[in-house]
Amino acid sequence: MNEFDYIAWIRQQTALSPGVLIGPGDDCAVLAGTGQPTLVTTDMLLEGSHFRLAETTPERIGRKAMAVNISDIAAMGGTPTFAFVAVGLPRGGAGQIAMELYRGMRDVADRFGVVIAGGDTNSWTGGLAVSVTLLGTPGSHGPILRSGARPGDWLFVTGPLGGSIVGKHFDFMPRVAEARQLQDHAAIHAMIDISDGLAGDVGHLCAESGCGVELFADWIPISDVARSLADERSSLEHALHDGEDFELAFAVSPEDGRRLLALQPIVDVSLCHIGVFLAEPGMFLVGENSRKEIMPCGFIHAF
Amino acid sequence: MNEFDYIAWIRQQTALSPGVLIGPGDDCAVLAGTGQPTLVTTDMLLEGSHFRLAETTPERIGRKAMAVNISDIAAMGGTPTFAFVAVGLPRGGAGQIAMELYRGMRDVADRFGVVIAGGDTNSWTGGLAVSVTLLGTPGSHGPILRSGARPGDWLFVTGPLGGSIVGKHFDFMPRVAEARQLQDHAAIHAMIDISDGLAGDVGHLCAESGCGVELFADWIPISDVARSLADERSSLEHALHDGEDFELAFAVSPEDGRRLLALQPIVDVSLCHIGVFLAEPGMFLVGENSRKEIMPCGFIHAF
Repeated sequence: MNEFDYIAWIRQQTALSPGVLIGPGDDCAVLAGTGQPTLVTTDMLLEGSHFRLAETTPERIGRKAMAVNISDIAAMGGTPTFAFVAVGLPRGGAGQIAMELYRGMRDVADRFGVVIAGGDTNSWTGGLAVSVTLLGTPGSHGPILRSGARPGDWLFVTGPLGGSIVGKHFDFMPRVAEARQLQDHAAIHAMIDISDGLAGDVGHLCAESGCGVELFADWIPISDVARSLADERSSLEHALHDGEDFELAFAVSPEDGRRLLALQPIVDVSLCHIGVFLAEPGMFLVGENSRKEIMPCGFIHAF
Repeated sequence: MNEFDYIAWIRQQTALSPGVLIGPGDDCAVLAGTGQPTLVTTDMLLEGSHFRLAETTPERIGRKAMAVNISDIAAMGGTPTFAFVAVGLPRGGAGQIAMELYRGMRDVADRFGVVIAGGDTNSWTGGLAVSVTLLGTPGSHGPILRSGARPGDWLFVTGPLGGSIVGKHFDFMPRVAEARQLQDHAAIHAMIDISDGLAGDVGHLCAESGCGVELFADWIPISDVARSLADERSSLEHALHDGEDFELAFAVSPEDGRRLLALQPIVDVSLCHIGVFLAEPGMFLVGENSRKEIMPCGFIHAF
């Protein structure tokens, strides 16, 4: 069993509830209330799986724990608002770790207008565990789901991919403002942030939208780091399968796609058209003289 | 440093925000939105600190992880609504643990109308870590805070105390309906659920309300379990200082207190008048012929 099997099982268990507009399986849940809907996401970072305390600082871990959640709100086109933080601290220096962790969280929270409004702090004999739950508000067009891509839609990404392990997975800036600006210039049919890797996350868009996709090998933007990392895996493979770039992948109509390419409306971001959604299932990598099916998999957390 | 020092430090760091009606330091945060305010609480259970996997079942742990959060909503007089669950699973049988944990959470969630609307599930080399974030709606009179007790108010509890370690700390039923019924019969000035122990949690009420308190030794209801446990500590000491009874302690005016005693409006619950709030600081235990100051401390998580 892996995390996706478990999510599928959870979705089977989850009864439809009138208050839950979107339940498990998207970047955020969407809740109905007496006011506008609320976005909620939760992400946990665990020592040894997501970071090693010996190789980084609690401040950087705190920063990442907050930023990955902010990125989930960005992926719905929303604005993050209030965060709740639960922490399991390793005994021995726990107070110091707690304060540095908080500083890292506050730093990125402050940049995005997020208020840390509550939490729970414990120490234990285990490793550092940080869980952030983040609320947000959808954009004026409502939350952007994974499920809205249509055959013929163009697939875009907001930046170069691959090799985030070298540092970007800690230091990335969630694409909140970019997602907001995109909505001013195009009707975004579906969106996701790239945490599991391009192939994996575009696979999620396809699965939820009931589409397949063709990826244009020569148009996928590859980061300089991925080029320098190229080893037994090519730089393109790094761009396709490495996780935690936290760029946005999104679907728009060809008309909107052409306009975005012509306008390039986002400062410091080069929007890249990297594929097209298909009516038939499957993920196909298309080169100048080739078309081969690839597995829509990135990093999968096995249980 | 212990958890309360850390909470105090966090409160110093937390800028006032117009959206945060109540921030860190109460049972729940209270957030303003476009509709009615939202209650939010988060609580994390950690293997070895809060439970031992070898001595209990994942189902019971899941049940408790959900119930402690529901109890925090009850302590504000609110109704729990949506839960988000982040889990760190020990590798080896993680899938099985995940499913049993979920069943336990669902069981108690279903009883209280709570929908598990999202989460994050990971495995790692560490122990089991379960973090639940729970949303809720306040009662019609608004959230009941820790800070509203006034000198002269009577202190009540909703049931017998002490010895929860024998089993009640897993199997307690959060007092959601009871808190709602109380509000129909009295103006509740302040309330808390007893997680750190009676003395510790009434100490929180006092600290937030700027009051002291006299506790009536003979009127504190002592559980049968606490009586059977009496060892080097008396059963009264167990009732005063054991944690995790998850009964409610609350403050009402003497007039409302007399009415509650006369009416006893809650089925299967004997409301007990156990003390009176004072203008001067301190916690005093009053017996037939004695009055001694005691430390307002229960279980404190040292870092």
